[in-house]
Amino acid sequence: MKALQYRRIGAAPEVVTVPDPQPGPGQVLLKVTAAGVCHSDIAVMSWPAEGFPYELPLTLGHEAVGAVAVLGDGVRGLREGDEVAVYGPWGCGTCAKCAEGKENYCLRAAELGIFPPGLGSPGAIAEYLLVDDARHLVPVDGLDPVATVPLTDAGLTPYHAVKRALPRLVPGSTAVVIGTGGLGHVAVQLLRAMSPARVIALDISEEKLALARAVGAHETVLSDGQAVGKVRDLTGGTGAEAVFDFVGAEATVRTAGAVVAVEGEVGIVGIGGGTLPVGFGSLPFEVSVTAPYWGSRGELIEVIGLARAGAVAVHTETYSLDEAPRAYERLHAGEVNGRAVIVPHG
Amino acid sequence: MKALQYRRIGAAPEVVTVPDPQPGPGQVLLKVTAAGVCHSDIAVMSWPAEGFPYELPLTLGHEAVGAVAVLGDGVRGLREGDEVAVYGPWGCGTCAKCAEGKENYCLRAAELGIFPPGLGSPGAIAEYLLVDDARHLVPVDGLDPVATVPLTDAGLTPYHAVKRALPRLVPGSTAVVIGTGGLGHVAVQLLRAMSPARVIALDISEEKLALARAVGAHETVLSDGQAVGKVRDLTGGTGAEAVFDFVGAEATVRTAGAVVAVEGEVGIVGIGGGTLPVGFGSLPFEVSVTAPYWGSRGELIEVIGLARAGAVAVHTETYSLDEAPRAYERLHAGEVNGRAVIVPHG
Amino acid sequence: MKALQYRRIGAAPEVVTVPDPQPGPGQVLLKVTAAGVCHSDIAVMSWPAEGFPYELPLTLGHEAVGAVAVLGDGVRGLREGDEVAVYGPWGCGTCAKCAEGKENYCLRAAELGIFPPGLGSPGAIAEYLLVDDARHLVPVDGLDPVATVPLTDAGLTPYHAVKRALPRLVPGSTAVVIGTGGLGHVAVQLLRAMSPARVIALDISEEKLALARAVGAHETVLSDGQAVGKVRDLTGGTGAEAVFDFVGAEATVRTAGAVVAVEGEVGIVGIGGGTLPVGFGSLPFEVSVTAPYWGSRGELIEVIGLARAGAVAVHTETYSLDEAPRAYERLHAGEVNGRAVIVPHG
Amino acid sequence: MKALQYRRIGAAPEVVTVPDPQPGPGQVLLKVTAAGVCHSDIAVMSWPAEGFPYELPLTLGHEAVGAVAVLGDGVRGLREGDEVAVYGPWGCGTCAKCAEGKENYCLRAAELGIFPPGLGSPGAIAEYLLVDDARHLVPVDGLDPVATVPLTDAGLTPYHAVKRALPRLVPGSTAVVIGTGGLGHVAVQLLRAMSPARVIALDISEEKLALARAVGAHETVLSDGQAVGKVRDLTGGTGAEAVFDFVGAEATVRTAGAVVAVEGEVGIVGIGGGTLPVGFGSLPFEVSVTAPYWGSRGELIEVIGLARAGAVAVHTETYSLDEAPRAYERLHAGEVNGRAVIVPHG
Repeated sequence: MKALQYRRIGAAPEVVTVPDPQPGPGQVLLKVTAAGVCHSDIAVMSWPAEGFPYELPLTLGHEAVGAVAVLGDGVRGLREGDEVAVYGPWGCGTCAKCAEGKENYCLRAAELGIFPPGLGSPGAIAEYLLVDDARHLVPVDGLDPVATVPLTDAGLTPYHAVKRALPRLVPGSTAVVIGTGGLGHVAVQLLRAMSPARVIALDISEEKLALARAVGAHETVLSDGQAVGKVRDLTGGTGAEAVFDFVGAEATVRTAGAVVAVEGEVGIVGIGGGTLPVGFGSLPFEVSVTAPYWGSRGELIEVIGLARAGAVAVHTETYSLDEAPRAYERLHAGEVNGRAVIVPHG
Repeated sequence: MKALQYRRIGAAPEVVTVPDPQPGPGQVLLKVTAAGVCHSDIAVMSWPAEGFPYELPLTLGHEAVGAVAVLGDGVRGLREGDEVAVYGPWGCGTCAKCAEGKENYCLRAAELGIFPPGLGSPGAIAEYLLVDDARHLVPVDGLDPVATVPLTDAGLTPYHAVKRALPRLVPGSTAVVIGTGGLGHVAVQLLRAMSPARVIALDISEEKLALARAVGAHETVLSDGQAVGKVRDLTGGTGAEAVFDFVGAEATVRTAGAVVAVEGEVGIVGIGGGTLPVGFGSLPFEVSVTAPYWGSRGELIEVIGLARAGAVAVHTETYSLDEAPRAYERLHAGEVNGRAVIVPHG
Repeated sequence: MKALQYRRIGAAPEVVTVPDPQPGPGQVLLKVTAAGVCHSDIAVMSWPAEGFPYELPLTLGHEAVGAVAVLGDGVRGLREGDEVAVYGPWGCGTCAKCAEGKENYCLRAAELGIFPPGLGSPGAIAEYLLVDDARHLVPVDGLDPVATVPLTDAGLTPYHAVKRALPRLVPGSTAVVIGTGGLGHVAVQLLRAMSPARVIALDISEEKLALARAVGAHETVLSDGQAVGKVRDLTGGTGAEAVFDFVGAEATVRTAGAVVAVEGEVGIVGIGGGTLPVGFGSLPFEVSVTAPYWGSRGELIEVIGLARAGAVAVHTETYSLDEAPRAYERLHAGEVNGRAVIVPHG
Repeated sequence: MKALQYRRIGAAPEVVTVPDPQPGPGQVLLKVTAAGVCHSDIAVMSWPAEGFPYELPLTLGHEAVGAVAVLGDGVRGLREGDEVAVYGPWGCGTCAKCAEGKENYCLRAAELGIFPPGLGSPGAIAEYLLVDDARHLVPVDGLDPVATVPLTDAGLTPYHAVKRALPRLVPGSTAVVIGTGGLGHVAVQLLRAMSPARVIALDISEEKLALARAVGAHETVLSDGQAVGKVRDLTGGTGAEAVFDFVGAEATVRTAGAVVAVEGEVGIVGIGGGTLPVGFGSLPFEVSVTAPYWGSRGELIEVIGLARAGAVAVHTETYSLDEAPRAYERLHAGEVNGRAVIVPHG
């Protein structure tokens, strides 16, 4: 079958032919109907050879939707042809975290050599994807694969960050979203669907702020020197009960800390390398700062529930498998509008 | 001043002239701008003389909005003319419940002889209302008194019931509202504003179901012999994660128990006298059943926050103070559309 | 191998020889080192033929500890000889409940024909037990199998009931345990280990109350006509913030409802057939009543954690596999002191 | 009456005679039976004149227990002679935070010029203390004033920090307490009374570690270069689910960040000026870092509940009012063993 592989450190990914995978006991082979292209793949391909954590060549792609093609021995509860989304952060399935479905925080994955698809295991940008266990599949029959596939990461990641903040987002509260690109414009929709909070979106791009307004932000603020003052004014001086930073750079985490309210929460989701110092007096009283990662199995089921309700939509542009290298080029160049999705059998 | 009083057991309430109240230390006198008329007053007036819990005559009205007229000694943080809503379930202010603002569950109110306005203390259907402590006032400047006043009970009561169920109301879940009258049609709006749940409304009146749809119910079901089956079908057999019964009669609590899902919650808010038996095997696994009452001080602030955001609206019809007896007659006769509000200085 | 089977409706269970089980893909064969004997098996054997939910013959036993004997194809993260406890309430592993480890509330088990061991699937009172998936195993190396095996049900069930009540059990609060036998005397220990609440134990037997005191109850009350008054007195009139009824008969659920405090919780765990009616005015304000069942995978890991810390101990008496029928006879006759455990390879 | 006052920037506090205070409407005058001496007073007295936030002279003392001497007009629910502890972080009583009893985070205190006793308002190290509102008093009749008074800050502050971490402290989890002095040795007791977590105490003083063991720490670790490795070893490599830093210096917050587990919590309570940087990759996944301050009214009631149960004891040494300056000298010199308490009428 054809697959998009990262083959040599520093080289661009290539479409190559690899052997067709076969499911072992408990595994499931999917015919991929849509696979997402993600910024984090570009980060991976920028890492140096020394300490590179995965074996090469590596088939890319950690967002997948597909149809069940072959069931491995012992799999039950699924039938050939079932359309499913793939939960990406695979774990051992049995440790204390996995027992609650939080495989993103598996305590034994490293020890057992378990890797997510496209991030160590063969990924989804291929004609077929081998899924290690049926528990990593969520039914999506009736949903459009292209619209659905970004929800497995670009939807699940902000969903998890937003869900943990919901108890603070009572009526009269404010949520700030910093960076309204791929994940941020989903976060705005999630906040509107799941909470009564007023949503203020910040970005350095007027175009992205227009998108934020289109998907439901109550207020948008250009992320410049006046931004902090404007958010403070919009909240009557109190600040925001929750701030989600999808950039995570030094400048944005500082803004996050400057606009958050007493007892508020800052979620740093972006991997821009910035850090916010927390200590007595460094932030308003009892502000909680955290950097969450991806989400749980139960949360992916909930995100798919939101999609079924029509409450969240990701802007996408599609590519064939042969065009996949170009999708990464365009993403790297900042030319992708929303989320790039590969359709291998298009 | 003029006040509407219930003066003799079994008699209709009358507009009478009473002495002008004066605020003592810590108290606040309000000029009433709007006062709500509530079904529970009619229940009170139906009670027999034996065991009647309040002294007569009793000025009615436990929903109030007004303007600060006179501040008692020692009150700070308020100014004459401030427009405020009154938190009705007055407590001692210091017990473990009151320390968290849950004065509706005050542990010492009975012992100390503390009663809510209109339910033991002189009520709001009068030209002026004496409020026992400034902490019972929530700023509502800029909001319409008539639209706001029902929120202090008909808003706060369903708000409290809905808020406690929110952790169950994840995307993909269902909430059922039984009885879409005064409180129920507010509950539908609260669920839409605060959760991603699908909302199914049940009532025996097609007219009320039309109102439920108008304020946001996704589905409406006539409350007849097929209702349980229809709700089960709409939820794919699973049932509803939360059911709110604003009638509370034997028939409706049975319906609530029949449509709730495993690990779901039934909130019985209506005072119709019905009870739902809970034991092993009587309901789906780990269904939680409770009968909440009114709400907390913090929750009233949140409800007012929802009103400011335009997320909740109560249908009202207004009466002068002299017309107040007629408002009760019409309410008793089932002729009031939404909530009746008295405007004493109209 | 030898196994204890319930073979004909109404007959006593017998030790018989059955074919040795072999693990299929993803399954694990355990050499059973300890298996628990439970009252609920006696309930099962009392059911009539009509509507009996399981196929006969049925190997009994839903509490198991064993050593990994054979790993089915595709199982990883386990080695032969590993000592493990079995999570009993098997589910599908993929539905919304199972995704959070709550297989006790699996939404698809019935549809897929999945049954717990000893409650539909071949049970643990045998030389070997076939476990359907490695995720149902929790490491218990270093712990005594006999002491550990009752924790999988007689420990996990009260653990789940207690854990959900913990937010109410703040310092100064009271927990009441009704019925201090098999599960109840574990509940007393759990409450002492996990909360600062004062624990009051109720039973009709002075002997069991002595056991309750020995394992940590602060107060014990004979469950007679004065019991409700005594609990009210011990709590200064307030009542108990949480009440756990491990009997579940009409008389005990009534007692539970009579001693619970405003905003308190009643957990009906016993299967005695009693029901507590909930409606406005039937109980103190906002009392929550529920009937939980067994527990989650994550909770079993936590219970084993308690055992490792020495915080919970179950009284046991042991029997060989050949003596297993006598263990059931004695349990039925009320002669077992604590929990009967079968040691098949003793 | 006599009072201990801080009169000039940089000068030592002096015992002086000031006019007897009189309670206004809603206020309560206490005869002080015990008043605590706190490190934070020494911090206050180290601040420069420029920007000093309080008016001088300032009567010191923010921990108080006393007997009701005079009730201001309008106070009800209290009688002369009632023994009470004082909730110190006074707020407005009506804002959204105060409505839930979180006056430590009052949104309007600064605007309204409201200060805690001893931190802006006249403090407790005096013969009498004027309390601004009866809601700031918690009954402590029957408890020893000297043993009780430190609970209002040295008890309440760690209580609040520990309580918010309780959901993480399941059986099998670990809590680390860094700094086992005044607040830290209380935290160890709170953790033992309220959770099943294993408690590891860190300090640079073997003597304080001995105290930590005496009050219940399961393990103690000298806070040197090997400390992080030892904690990791004690937790099987996982780290601690909750870390409480009562020092808050650069070195200790780094240690906190190095020993915390995935999804764990770091509470920085000490005011040592250290900050812990939070961003993607800076700490294990989803570690939450926060700096809480004091506690709520409801929490003080709960702390007093713990004291009644005998579950928490603070080491104290007592001084007369005339000796109060010496108590501060000894505290400053590090010579106080536990908590210094002033007994004005000793």
